[in-house]
This record gives sequence, C-alpha cells and structure tokens, in this order.
Amino acid sequence: MAIVLGENRYGKAETRLVRVTRDGETHTLADFNVSIALSGDLAATHLTGDNSGVLPTDSMKNTVYAFAKEHGVGEPEEFALRLARHFVETQTQIRAARVGIEAFGWERLGPHSFKRQGDHTRTAEVTVTVEQSQVVSGISGMVLLNSTNSEFHGFPRDKYTTLPETTDRILATAVDARWRHLHDPADWGKSYAGVVEALTRAFVETHSLSLQQTLFAMGSRVLSEQAEIAEIRLALPNKHHYLVDLSPFELTNDNEVFIAGDRPYGLIEGTVTRDDVPPAITEWYP
Amino acid sequence: MAIVLGENRYGKAETRLVRVTRDGETHTLADFNVSIALSGDLAATHLTGDNSGVLPTDSMKNTVYAFAKEHGVGEPEEFALRLARHFVETQTQIRAARVGIEAFGWERLGPHSFKRQGDHTRTAEVTVTVEQSQVVSGISGMVLLNSTNSEFHGFPRDKYTTLPETTDRILATAVDARWRHLHDPADWGKSYAGVVEALTRAFVETHSLSLQQTLFAMGSRVLSEQAEIAEIRLALPNKHHYLVDLSPFELTNDNEVFIAGDRPYGLIEGTVTRDDVPPAITEWYP
Amino acid sequence: MAIVLGENRYGKAETRLVRVTRDGETHTLADFNVSIALSGDLAATHLTGDNSGVLPTDSMKNTVYAFAKEHGVGEPEEFALRLARHFVETQTQIRAARVGIEAFGWERLGPHSFKRQGDHTRTAEVTVTVEQSQVVSGISGMVLLNSTNSEFHGFPRDKYTTLPETTDRILATAVDARWRHLHDPADWGKSYAGVVEALTRAFVETHSLSLQQTLFAMGSRVLSEQAEIAEIRLALPNKHHYLVDLSPFELTNDNEVFIAGDRPYGLIEGTVTRDDVPPAITEWYP
Amino acid sequence: MAIVLGENRYGKAETRLVRVTRDGETHTLADFNVSIALSGDLAATHLTGDNSGVLPTDSMKNTVYAFAKEHGVGEPEEFALRLARHFVETQTQIRAARVGIEAFGWERLGPHSFKRQGDHTRTAEVTVTVEQSQVVSGISGMVLLNSTNSEFHGFPRDKYTTLPETTDRILATAVDARWRHLHDPADWGKSYAGVVEALTRAFVETHSLSLQQTLFAMGSRVLSEQAEIAEIRLALPNKHHYLVDLSPFELTNDNEVFIAGDRPYGLIEGTVTRDDVPPAITEWYP
Repeated sequence: MAIVLGENRYGKAETRLVRVTRDGETHTLADFNVSIALSGDLAATHLTGDNSGVLPTDSMKNTVYAFAKEHGVGEPEEFALRLARHFVETQTQIRAARVGIEAFGWERLGPHSFKRQGDHTRTAEVTVTVEQSQVVSGISGMVLLNSTNSEFHGFPRDKYTTLPETTDRILATAVDARWRHLHDPADWGKSYAGVVEALTRAFVETHSLSLQQTLFAMGSRVLSEQAEIAEIRLALPNKHHYLVDLSPFELTNDNEVFIAGDRPYGLIEGTVTRDDVPPAITEWYP
Repeated sequence: MAIVLGENRYGKAETRLVRVTRDGETHTLADFNVSIALSGDLAATHLTGDNSGVLPTDSMKNTVYAFAKEHGVGEPEEFALRLARHFVETQTQIRAARVGIEAFGWERLGPHSFKRQGDHTRTAEVTVTVEQSQVVSGISGMVLLNSTNSEFHGFPRDKYTTLPETTDRILATAVDARWRHLHDPADWGKSYAGVVEALTRAFVETHSLSLQQTLFAMGSRVLSEQAEIAEIRLALPNKHHYLVDLSPFELTNDNEVFIAGDRPYGLIEGTVTRDDVPPAITEWYP
Repeated sequence: MAIVLGENRYGKAETRLVRVTRDGETHTLADFNVSIALSGDLAATHLTGDNSGVLPTDSMKNTVYAFAKEHGVGEPEEFALRLARHFVETQTQIRAARVGIEAFGWERLGPHSFKRQGDHTRTAEVTVTVEQSQVVSGISGMVLLNSTNSEFHGFPRDKYTTLPETTDRILATAVDARWRHLHDPADWGKSYAGVVEALTRAFVETHSLSLQQTLFAMGSRVLSEQAEIAEIRLALPNKHHYLVDLSPFELTNDNEVFIAGDRPYGLIEGTVTRDDVPPAITEWYP
Repeated sequence: MAIVLGENRYGKAETRLVRVTRDGETHTLADFNVSIALSGDLAATHLTGDNSGVLPTDSMKNTVYAFAKEHGVGEPEEFALRLARHFVETQTQIRAARVGIEAFGWERLGPHSFKRQGDHTRTAEVTVTVEQSQVVSGISGMVLLNSTNSEFHGFPRDKYTTLPETTDRILATAVDARWRHLHDPADWGKSYAGVVEALTRAFVETHSLSLQQTLFAMGSRVLSEQAEIAEIRLALPNKHHYLVDLSPFELTNDNEVFIAGDRPYGLIEGTVTRDDVPPAITEWYP
C-alpha cells in the first residue's frame, strides 16, 4: 500500500472585474466575478515543492484584467472560453481549465449611470481540455412565488408523518439552474434570456401538485423551447410559508397570513435531459 | 456610589410576515420583517425577575400576525404605527414603542405570481410615546454607479498621502438613507417613491467633485421636492473601483478596466435638514 | 426656511491589518479591522466640492499601516487612541475622530503558527475631540447557553398571549456588550479579560427568571469587580430553543429535544451604570 | 428524441436540532444541522404530480427530532447512519439516502453551562443504499496561519506574470477537508480528533514551498497516522496577506505589516489516497 496524490487542481478564485466600454457618451458595464481552476501535470509541487509547472494564481488574475482590455469581455460564456483556452494552449503541463463567472446585472439609468439589479445572478461554467470544451450556463438566486395553484396531498404517511394534506398553499423557491449547451448558440445572451423566460413562465403557469412536478415542468419547457440545450439541472429549495394558526385570537386564516420560514427547507434537485445527447465530458455540476 | 439600571428596552426582533390579499383572482403580497422594542417601567424584571410588567415577546409576534389578519397591513409605516400604538395604549407600564419594518419588494408576474426584487429594501422606523409619534422612512442596499462625471482633487496631502488626484473615476455607492417625516403624508407609498426618485436622479445628475457633494445634492433634492420631509440622513459607502495598472502588459487603461474592491471602503455620513423643523423626539438613527 | 447641512463625518472603514512582531523565533500576531471617522469643518466639500479640508480616506488607510510599523499596535484601545489623536492633532479642520477596531483572536500553535479563534470578537471604540477622549471596549458574538436554571412566568397575558409559563427552559444568547472606561486602566488587556470573565461567570451563575434579570446580573457584576468601568450596555438576543412536541410519536420530551430557532428572536437591551459618573461626552453606542 | 427525467433526489435541509442529555446535574449538548436527501423511484411525482411515493420532507424533520429522543444522538456519523438506514429500510421506493450533518462545538463552562466554539465546524456525510453504506467525515472553517516558513519561487513566468519570488511569506488557509472511512472506526470521535490533530500538526510543521506541498503533507499525514481512512480531499484557499509597501513613508517592512485580503484568493484542491482502496460507491464530494 502506498499513499498517493489523487485528483487535484488549483487557481485563482473570485477575481472581481468591472469593465467599462465607452461608445462616445454612452457607457456599458460588465461586472464579473471570475474563478479559474487548472489541472494537469502538477504532481511535482505537491510532492517536492518544485513549482516549475505552477503558473502563479496571481498571473491568472492579471490575465483576467489584461484580456478584459485586449479583447473586451462580451458575454460571460465567451470571456470564460477565451480565458480557459488561453491556459490550456499556453501552459503545456495544463490539460484542463475550468472558468466560472458570476455576472451581476445593472439597470441603465442614464448614458453612464446604472443601478445594480439584485434579483438574480447569471453564471457561466466553462471546461476546456486539450481535446474539447463544454459550456454550462446558469442562474442563481431568482426567487419566485405563486400564492395559490399549489397543492400537496396523496403522499404516504409513516409513523412520523403529521403534515396535513393541502389543496392550496404558497409555493416559493429560489431558482438555481445550470444548463449544458449542446452546441454554441448564435447568441449567448439571447439563449440565456430564452431559458430564463422559459423557467419563469413554466413556474408561473404550472398548477403544481408537488415542487417536483414544477421542477420537471420548468426543465422540460426549457428543452422544448431552446434547441441548443442538452440538459438542465435544477436545485429548488421549497421556501416554506407556514399558515399561522389564528384560532386562539378568534380569527380565521383563509391562506392570508403566513410565516416565511428560514430553516429547515425542502430541497428538490433534478435533471431534465434529452435522451440522445452525448454525456457531459466531465462532472459539471459543482 | 451605587450600581443602577439605566436605559433599557426589550422586544421581538425579525418576525417574518407574508400577507396575501385576495381580490378575486388577483392577489397582492406584503413581505415584512418586523422588529418591536418596548420601554417603560421595566425595572422589576431586571432587579428581581418579577415579570408582572413583561408582556412576552411571543405575544408581540402573535400580535403582528393577528393584526395582519384583522386590519390588513397597508404601507409599512401604517402597519408599524398601528402596532406601536397598540402596545403603548394597552400596556400601562410601557411608555414608548418602537417598530421597525423591512419591506421586501416583489414584481408581479401574473395574477398570483411574483418575483422577488433584490435591488433595495424599503424600511420604516416608527416611535410612539404616550405623547407623540414620529415616522422615519428609509431605503437600504440600493447600489448606484456613475462610470464617469466623478472627480477627486484639491485635497490636502499629509505625510501619509499617496493618492493621485483624478478628474475621472467611477463613483459607486450603496445608498442607505433614513428620512424623518414632518407630518404624515397623504400617501406613504407615493412619498416613498418620490424620495427614491429624487435620490436616484440627484445621484445620476450630479457631476461629482466628492462623494460628500453628491450626498448633499441627494439630500437637498429630497427636501426640495418632498415638502413632508423634515430631514434626511445618508450613509454612503464609497465602493472603490481601482484602475488596474496594465502597463506591465504593454496595455493602456483609459478608465476601462477596474478592480471592484470589497474592503476597505470610504464611508460618508451626513444629514441634510430644514433649519426650522422641531428636533427629533428621540434619537432616531440607529 | 432653508435646507442646510447637519451632522456629518467621513472616513475609511474596515482597513484590514495583520501585524507580525518577531521576537527571535517567536512571533506574535495582531489581526485588526480598523474603521476611522472624522468630523469637523467639512461644509465646503458638501456644498461646493472644495476638498481643501478633506484628507483622503486613502491616507487614513496608509496611516493605519504606517503606524503599525512605526509604533507597533499593542492593545486595540491603544492603537485606536494613537490613530484618533493623530488626526485631531494634525488636521486643523478636524475636531473629532472616532476609531473603531475589531480585534480577532488567534490561538498559538507554535512559535510562528496560529489558529484563528472564532468564539467572539473583541472591540474598541475610541472618540477623541480637541478637548477630551473616551474609550469604549466591547465584545460581540460570544454565544452562551444554560441548559437549565432558567424560568419565565408571572408575565401579563393579553388577548394575544398564548405562551405557556415555564420553570425550566434553555437560555441562550450571543453577548454583545460595550463598556465605557472611567479612566485608562493600567492594562487594557487585563481589564478586557476581567470584564469578559465577569460577564461569563454572571451568566453561568445566575438562576434566571428572565433574560432581563440575567442582563442586569451580568452588568452589575462587571461594575462590582472592575473599578475602571463607568457603565456597560448589553444587547442580548434571546436565542429561542423551542421544545419539540413529540406526543404524536408517543414520546415524552423532558427538556431534551429542541429546535434551535433563527428568527424571530427576543432582543433585550439595557445599560447598567454607576450613579455618580460623568455622562458620556458623545453618543457612544452605535 | 425525447425529453426525460434524469437523476433526482429530494429531502429536508438544515433541520436544526439541539439535544440535551441529562446525567443528574451534568448535562451534555449536541448541536446539529441535519440535511437529508432521498433518491429512488420518484418519477411519478415529477411527471404527473402523483405523490404516493413521496414521504413528506416534514416527516423527515419529525424523524430527526423523534430519533434524537428515542435513540439519543451520539456522534454525528452514528446519528446520520441511523437516519439514512431508516429511510432506505422503511420506504420501499427509496434506494439511497444521504444524510449530512454539521456539528457545532460547545465548550463546557459548568455542569449545564456552555460557550459556543467558533473555530471550526465538524461535518459528517453518510450515504446508505440498499446494498452498502459509506461514511465521510470532515471539517470546515478551521483557519490556520504560519507567519514564516513559507516560500514561493521557481514558478514559470508568462507574459502576464508580475509576482516577485519570495522566500518568506505568510501562509494562511481555512481548512476544508473531507475524508472517507475505509471501515467504521471503534470510536468516531477519537478518529475525528486524530485526523484534526494530524492536519493541524502537518500544517504547522511543514516548511512550505507551495500550498500544494502543504496540502499533500496534510493529507498524507492523516493517512499515515489513521489506518481507518481510505482517502482525504482538501480544499485550501490561499488567504493572501499582502506585504504593505511602506517606502513612501520612509519605512521598511521586514514582513511585519500586511493587508489581509478578502478577494481574490488562491484555491488549492487535491485528494490524497491509498492506492489499494476500493473506489467510493458514489460521488461523495459535493
């Protein structure tokens, strides 16, 4: 038996970049949080401290800023691909690069004035190896709520089950979704907008018998409408809203007054996929 | 010399209330985080554990939920006033009540479907004593950015000053503002919208020589336009965006590529007031 | 009626300093988060953008680092006093400086090895004006729990009261305390340790009929034992632990199984003071 | 081509349990955050909203509390195994259960008095299928720092490299480690203490040429000393401490004054494993 080094990677996480592009008086803004991880032939530094293959993470940070100037940033998927390819192509000991970007949205208030949006974060996770590449786009933190059209009943009852059945409850979740592209869309931004629109409409329009049913409706709506998406993974917390018992105060509560709970919460996770797509080239869901 | 009890108060903090109001198919949503603090003749519980004057904080929580049913919630200022008055009027040992509300906004997606906004939080802080009352409205977390029209120069240079002067920088802040009402406006919601609009426009329209100048412009714009406001206090972090030195890579950086810094940050705090208003009845800025 | 500038201040917040002091092989570590706010004759920058009195906040940050080298840091109160005095003495337009420090503790693991403690943060808030100075020390985030010896009964019951009386409950709080020094102690570190010890022992040893009683016991213990302290302010959240109803599962629950709640929480705030001390020279509790 | 349901699971996350065990006057405390996820034959609820196989997540929460009473809790690994086995054994449609526990430490202050530790969190992640089970223990949030004995040089320099080589720097990290057990140890608590001690000593005692070298030293120390561990995965942020340039103030800085940076940070991830162990039965690292 020997003790050996297994899988490993390293990089610079959370490089905060704001890129202003000036078109005369009118500015546009890109606001990214960039994380880079490289893997390859990195045994030496682990075993002996020989750093001859270890491009400093500081250089990765510099590359983010220099590329933002040299090439502009464009869509987060584009910028991530450019960075990932750079490291695989220029560092011979590196065989795979993964670049993750959180992109924060800003609403325009004037030619060079902006208000930060806070209702969701757009994400991109790109993996580039010496042979191939893969792009996963995503969204996190979009909180949706239906104040009716949600039921939950017909479930099994074991010794520890006390939950009453309900035909009318609040359904609320914070959408966390990641979708893998089958091929590069003509326009990453348009693809993103289409997916988010599909997710949102499916949530709104589904009369829900379980959050699982809503999850599948959301995922299958995306695949139906967006031909460029291979599969989508959703993690949907069930943000419980508890009906308050007002009977001690001689008041009724017809689904009007709720406690918004913090913890615990349900957590529903699932993948919706096409049945004829190639598998992901690497485990892509962190 | 004796050791004595000084100022004190107690209450229930962060009661999370969601109130759905149903008008046929169309629902409206109020989403509040309610904190209550009461003061008065409370020495006994401190000195001997005699709780005969200590209405349980659990009862305060129940009151929030019961009132939400009995009276509805309306604007946060209204709901806070109703709660504060209740405790002062019904608990004889209580001489002042303070109710703070954080109100979270939701964007309508359908008759009973909503998306949570995340770009700011609306606040209300109400103080009711046996004699009078006072309402302070506010906003927190609204992040604004101008990508130009901001300068900073002409400052004194001491031994520890290395900052270069600049005639073009990013100015970004997360607006935290609290404004005291001179009298109850006809419509709290309309007053709030007017103040936020004035704050935002003043930020956008001010060519800034310092964040202090912008602060005063924002505060005085509010007082100019909203006759019902006595004074406004602003706390504006200077969210620094550092210009990246790209010269090692033989690139120029004409205010295009920035590091968005986390810490440290500048912090500019100031009050803008009318010179003829009565003083606040109590220290109202936490 | 005119619109005028009221109280204002500005400075650099959250400058993160780590200072290593080397005594041969043995190192010591100071880990501070320093926030500085200056006030004085600062109207010009607000009204016209004239910055001739506005020492850059960047210079304040530089001063923190330079002083850490020139003078070392010592206890947080000392370092805060040195910084605050510097700004009042060297900037003629500045009439008051306030310096707040969060000091993070590290446990020694070796001559130059450390593990960060996380059970509390030590704080210092110093105010220096052209005439006088004041030091407030403090602690935040120390979570204490008694699993018995806590009761709550004898309280008034109004229409909204449903809480049962109890003679045995968990009492848990996260201690947030600030104490004002009457005079400079011989040793800030020893004074701090004495206060924290007094707070902790009083919490442990008090058979509690209300959290208010515990609060007063904690504050008065500090003043009894530490002659250098003028007054102490405590903010004690009542971190509720709810007894789980296990009767549906035919189990009893003799104060054994609890839900640790997040929100809402009780919040008990109070001051314990000597009756013969001069008032604070300025509002010192943020 | 069809759109189909892929991998999925559901459960209750973050059930907060505090369990008091009374041995006469002396109490002991367990403070857990329990997350449960079940998978199996769950297609119906996704496709049609048929919930006949969906044990409510509310029942999972109840089970946590009831089991805490019926069986006590013991070590987090034990409690997680008991819960996971219960769901696989009693719900025929469930084929795998995963239970994760965060265990928060408390320091004893008296027979029934405690102070919450904050320097790390102990974790357990248990996976039970109909055929087998697997236990992964872990630690998160333990921040370690060496103020010397860390170097970084000999690295490749590309076009974007500006980092100077150094033979003396601060090395600091927040240890996040997960280790898979080869077999059940006689004593989970003793095993945990042994691993944490090995990690800590290896960090302290390694003269580091790279954080990767330290990572491998930490992992291999654990496997050398703890025969029951099959493999260990470490994620070590490089918490950068930047040397302040004091030369503008005519001061030297011999590794004494540092900026503690927030973002970006390096992130070094790696696995150390025995070469003869069976593979993990499932992807176990979230």
